[in-house]
Amino acid sequence: MLIVSTVPELHRALADHRAVGRSVGFVPTMGFLHEGHLSLVRRARQENGAVVVSIFVNPAQFAPTEDLDRYPRDVERDSALCRAEGCDILFVPKPEEMYPDGFSTYVSVEGLSSRLEGTFRPTHFRGVATVVLKLFLLVRPDRAYFGQKDAQQCAVIAAMVRDLAVPVRLVVVPTVRESDGLAMSSRNVYLSPDERKRAPVLYRALSRAAERIAAGERDAARLSAGITAAIMEQSPSAVDYAAVVDPLTLEPVDALAPGSDVLIPVAVRFGTTRLIDNIIVRVP
Amino acid sequence: MLIVSTVPELHRALADHRAVGRSVGFVPTMGFLHEGHLSLVRRARQENGAVVVSIFVNPAQFAPTEDLDRYPRDVERDSALCRAEGCDILFVPKPEEMYPDGFSTYVSVEGLSSRLEGTFRPTHFRGVATVVLKLFLLVRPDRAYFGQKDAQQCAVIAAMVRDLAVPVRLVVVPTVRESDGLAMSSRNVYLSPDERKRAPVLYRALSRAAERIAAGERDAARLSAGITAAIMEQSPSAVDYAAVVDPLTLEPVDALAPGSDVLIPVAVRFGTTRLIDNIIVRVP
Repeated sequence: MLIVSTVPELHRALADHRAVGRSVGFVPTMGFLHEGHLSLVRRARQENGAVVVSIFVNPAQFAPTEDLDRYPRDVERDSALCRAEGCDILFVPKPEEMYPDGFSTYVSVEGLSSRLEGTFRPTHFRGVATVVLKLFLLVRPDRAYFGQKDAQQCAVIAAMVRDLAVPVRLVVVPTVRESDGLAMSSRNVYLSPDERKRAPVLYRALSRAAERIAAGERDAARLSAGITAAIMEQSPSAVDYAAVVDPLTLEPVDALAPGSDVLIPVAVRFGTTRLIDNIIVRVP
Repeated sequence: MLIVSTVPELHRALADHRAVGRSVGFVPTMGFLHEGHLSLVRRARQENGAVVVSIFVNPAQFAPTEDLDRYPRDVERDSALCRAEGCDILFVPKPEEMYPDGFSTYVSVEGLSSRLEGTFRPTHFRGVATVVLKLFLLVRPDRAYFGQKDAQQCAVIAAMVRDLAVPVRLVVVPTVRESDGLAMSSRNVYLSPDERKRAPVLYRALSRAAERIAAGERDAARLSAGITAAIMEQSPSAVDYAAVVDPLTLEPVDALAPGSDVLIPVAVRFGTTRLIDNIIVRVP
């Protein structure tokens, strides 16, 4: 595995794989890798001749009030994990490599970016879309891998790729969970032992909602009220949202239509730690 | 020459050239071609194995109050001209091909886009950057050709290409002028015979400013005042601006530094017709 931090190094490393006709699978991450990330790397490894992982804690997707400075980092451990999974190129750019002096171009996906997470993080998806497009243009992957846990990010990137005709195939990989159901997240390390015990309620509440849909519930308002009530039993600092939306447009669904898919995303705060999770349910 | 209007047709046509290893030169236009456009096509023809011209009157770069509907169009004549210049592929998409239902992704180059033209056309360069990036991603050219007449457009696109690492080489081609100095523009057809007689004052005033710089003038305010005064002699409806700026950042220059290049752009209205022009001068 080659570890590179500059664009010329990345291009040289990629050229060797391109020269022999290998397809490129790309896993963009913010590092502090967990099993969720590794499931993306494994999938990329299965489907491509070469695998590129990037680690970049992207300043543009953090608001000034957010956790950019304390976001967990461990590039040495990440490198060992990537090497063990058969990654070929690990791209670890410095902020000034991605955003040199005078950088002023931003990509916005309107509508999608302002719903759900966007209500609480208004500039977040602009930062995500910008860095992901730049990474796509640097790596020029055949396929790029994202985790379903960040469902809105997946929807924003899919819209960007479709709208701008970005030549890449997106692969969304199911959320990986701890044994008690908590979705893997680099931010889980922020949870106190007590918060960690309460956090699995997100997935329990989502699973219960899926059961209610299977049992015939078709009213989105009752479903989201049920999820909120279940989560409130664990005394979070806040339930930012518990919604039932269209998986592509993220527009709210009122009555669940048989045969359709619905995305049920939640965002919950325990102390200063904000957790998100979601499920996609096919309505019977 | 193949004329195509859809993305799949475009990709099929390009694949034939790519398969035999031809480089691709791309000239994006809004059609109603004049000698300025044709000079771009000729340059692309000289430097590439295959030449693609696009004709697309891009709704996203017109404000609701602007001339989208009456912008001059003549695709038949344009096709004949492109064929005569050795263009290989003419891409003439419909608006719904470029902006299908649900399109919501926009590219903004902050700073550069709000100066000069941006003061009068606040959403213009967002539309330009978005469509040019999409065209670049569709055509994937090795080189793309733009006219110096639209100097701010060149600066915005250069910033976008640099910031997002778009894999294309930009080539800026000198402005082509009528024999009396008027810069070629599809919008010149809007001018009444009387306005047409007065319009060459833009280039006369710019040329006089260049002479004054050659003669030792280093004060930007005096230069732009001189340009404005010269143009006012021809009774335009308005001089929107006459500025002395850095060619890359478009930031105003106060005192002209020996050895530097300055861009001197003007925007002038005759009746409802808005003309722009510029020169780049190396300060002795």
